[in-house]
Amino acid sequence: MSAFCDNYNNFRAMANITDIAGGITAAAGFRAAGVVAGIKKSGRKDFALVAADVPAVAAAVFTTNKVAAAPVVLSRERAAAGVVAAVALNSGCANACTGPQGLADAREMAAATAAALGVDESAVLVCSTGVIGKLLPMERIKDGARLAAAALSCDGGADAAEAIMTTDTVDKQYAVQVEIDGRLVTIGGMCKGSGMIEPLMATMLGVVTTDAAIGAVALDAALRQAVEVSFNRAVVDGDCSTNDTVIMMASGVAGNSELSAEHPGWNDFVEALQMVCIELAKKIVLDGEGATKFVTVRVKGAVNDADAHKVARAIAKSALVKTSWFGLDPNWGRVIAAAGYSGAVIDDQKAQIYYGEICAYDRGEVADSLRIEALRKVMEAPSFDVTVNLNLGNGADVVYTCDFSYDYVKINAEYTT
Amino acid sequence: MSAFCDNYNNFRAMANITDIAGGITAAAGFRAAGVVAGIKKSGRKDFALVAADVPAVAAAVFTTNKVAAAPVVLSRERAAAGVVAAVALNSGCANACTGPQGLADAREMAAATAAALGVDESAVLVCSTGVIGKLLPMERIKDGARLAAAALSCDGGADAAEAIMTTDTVDKQYAVQVEIDGRLVTIGGMCKGSGMIEPLMATMLGVVTTDAAIGAVALDAALRQAVEVSFNRAVVDGDCSTNDTVIMMASGVAGNSELSAEHPGWNDFVEALQMVCIELAKKIVLDGEGATKFVTVRVKGAVNDADAHKVARAIAKSALVKTSWFGLDPNWGRVIAAAGYSGAVIDDQKAQIYYGEICAYDRGEVADSLRIEALRKVMEAPSFDVTVNLNLGNGADVVYTCDFSYDYVKINAEYTT
Repeated sequence: MSAFCDNYNNFRAMANITDIAGGITAAAGFRAAGVVAGIKKSGRKDFALVAADVPAVAAAVFTTNKVAAAPVVLSRERAAAGVVAAVALNSGCANACTGPQGLADAREMAAATAAALGVDESAVLVCSTGVIGKLLPMERIKDGARLAAAALSCDGGADAAEAIMTTDTVDKQYAVQVEIDGRLVTIGGMCKGSGMIEPLMATMLGVVTTDAAIGAVALDAALRQAVEVSFNRAVVDGDCSTNDTVIMMASGVAGNSELSAEHPGWNDFVEALQMVCIELAKKIVLDGEGATKFVTVRVKGAVNDADAHKVARAIAKSALVKTSWFGLDPNWGRVIAAAGYSGAVIDDQKAQIYYGEICAYDRGEVADSLRIEALRKVMEAPSFDVTVNLNLGNGADVVYTCDFSYDYVKINAEYTT
Repeated sequence: MSAFCDNYNNFRAMANITDIAGGITAAAGFRAAGVVAGIKKSGRKDFALVAADVPAVAAAVFTTNKVAAAPVVLSRERAAAGVVAAVALNSGCANACTGPQGLADAREMAAATAAALGVDESAVLVCSTGVIGKLLPMERIKDGARLAAAALSCDGGADAAEAIMTTDTVDKQYAVQVEIDGRLVTIGGMCKGSGMIEPLMATMLGVVTTDAAIGAVALDAALRQAVEVSFNRAVVDGDCSTNDTVIMMASGVAGNSELSAEHPGWNDFVEALQMVCIELAKKIVLDGEGATKFVTVRVKGAVNDADAHKVARAIAKSALVKTSWFGLDPNWGRVIAAAGYSGAVIDDQKAQIYYGEICAYDRGEVADSLRIEALRKVMEAPSFDVTVNLNLGNGADVVYTCDFSYDYVKINAEYTT
């Protein structure tokens, strides 16, 4: 994973992965729709549907927040079977902290979708995003299921991506193609999320589809690995919501011989999936509320990968570090202090800290004023890297994050009724 | 501890603890000074000294940040002996990330202080606060030691409290008296800290003195317990520095029979010490940069105290929650989401959340608009409580914190050269 984190563009070239337009309907065997069900007061699209032509092999990863929304509880239960016919997603209401009624409503949302599609309801997963503590408006949800089922198309991916947006300023889609067994395999996805902008707003949803032929166990392993290096490495404000979900479906239509860890094309498939998830996760960070800087925190030389991750995460979540990025201040002292309380092994006399390629702190030696000018120049760009080399071992990790600006506070402090 | 957290005013009345003026020189057996040594460019006081008339029983608690400043490394080593004659503290330079030279300088600072006082250098502890990555200006440090030793007085506590300030807007002192064995025992302290305001600034230093007669082991136990419910419960921005230190010295001059856990007056002493530390810690939070609200986060009904602490800390560190306080938004959804990712056991259908005495969320039931008005009124005060009752057990905890305002970002993003 360390080598991959360093430069997946190398792997991309090696594996012959090319990006293409589209999202969840790029891969063969899937149709989608995004419609106005009237859940959102704004009148914008708020009900999305992704349906497999035939029940697909599936895997899913859910939030670790102990306060899990009803759709998460239901979908987690059903995804365990490894087969999914459709995923229904609504925005405008998270159906979280809604108790037994909320769970009943989640089941009914799935049932209405299943009925409209003519599939088994146990093969339908549901996701919700929006305000916490409000029940789903069930008449609208049922309308949404019917309208979406009737509107399904092979080009419906963009509408679906739009229908799951809440405070996102842009819809988020990405797709790639990779050669496996001489076949062209497509992997495409959509997601939503930009930090918990409006109060009581749930955060991150992702759906990925592929036409690869792959077993449920292998798909689950590939997805978990991909989520780990992508969505789980994207930090906006450090809070993980009650509704975070990533669901993946595989139709098998590409006709490759079934993928598994032993398949010669496995690494290529895994890398292509990771590329899709990383790009989608980056889009979430880039849309982080009030963000002015996209920062990639790279940690190397830790005693192990787990330590590297602790350091990267501590830096990416530190309010002090993030405000310094907003202020174009190459404040390595805050970076090293964050590394110091992360729990990782660290020796400040061995550590090095870089902004871009410029060294700010080198094993006890501090950058002089000329270097500070160069460091500030790095930070003027809308996107830059902060690299920490602990020089203790081979552990590495990468986290994607953004700065903390005045607008973040402004947006998040708005009063809500 | 749970009962104590709930209302130490009760204990205060029971134990006959009264607050008095002063700080580290309130207790008999200590003298102090605060002088201008020329370490700070501003020309303000920057060298403090606390000296015991005769070597005192001592205990100390240090930062858990793995990047520990040289003064912390040295003082931690020496404090283990349980006897301290003096503590020298400088502001303007943290002597952190300064390698072997930094440690040699810390030793020399102690040696110069010891020489000026005529005491054994191994009985002198040092503390530093200020910019990280710069070496101590040793000529000024040595001047400071001489000047401070010459200026020692029984009223020097206020000058010392001033000399340890960096970005604090006020000096921080507090003292109480409590009756033990029919003797009047005094406990007084000073501290500095208000979050890492200026880049590369170290955070929290505290010194507490008492004239109680107490053994080193008992003092260490009492101090650790007090630090745990006070300084370790004060959250400004969630970052702990490279220099955090609390040192306590006991002169024995009060003449009580030696305190230990078996002494009938032990609880009274411990409560008085906790009062001093809690008041000092609250002063740090109240001086949090840009803070407009002082918030006490109380968690009850957790499965155990450790879980309660996780929840309280997660809430107090959440940028989303803290910005909602700034915005006077009774956003219980963010509070429960923070509790949900804290790692504690939680059932959202059993949890209750209050702002002051007003309930915002009650086991699945959300506050209506009339209640929201009442909630906002609570938040208009400069200080209020946010209480979470998990209704799962008897675990409880309290954390003191402040909101996250526009000024926090503004102050922390200022460019530094």
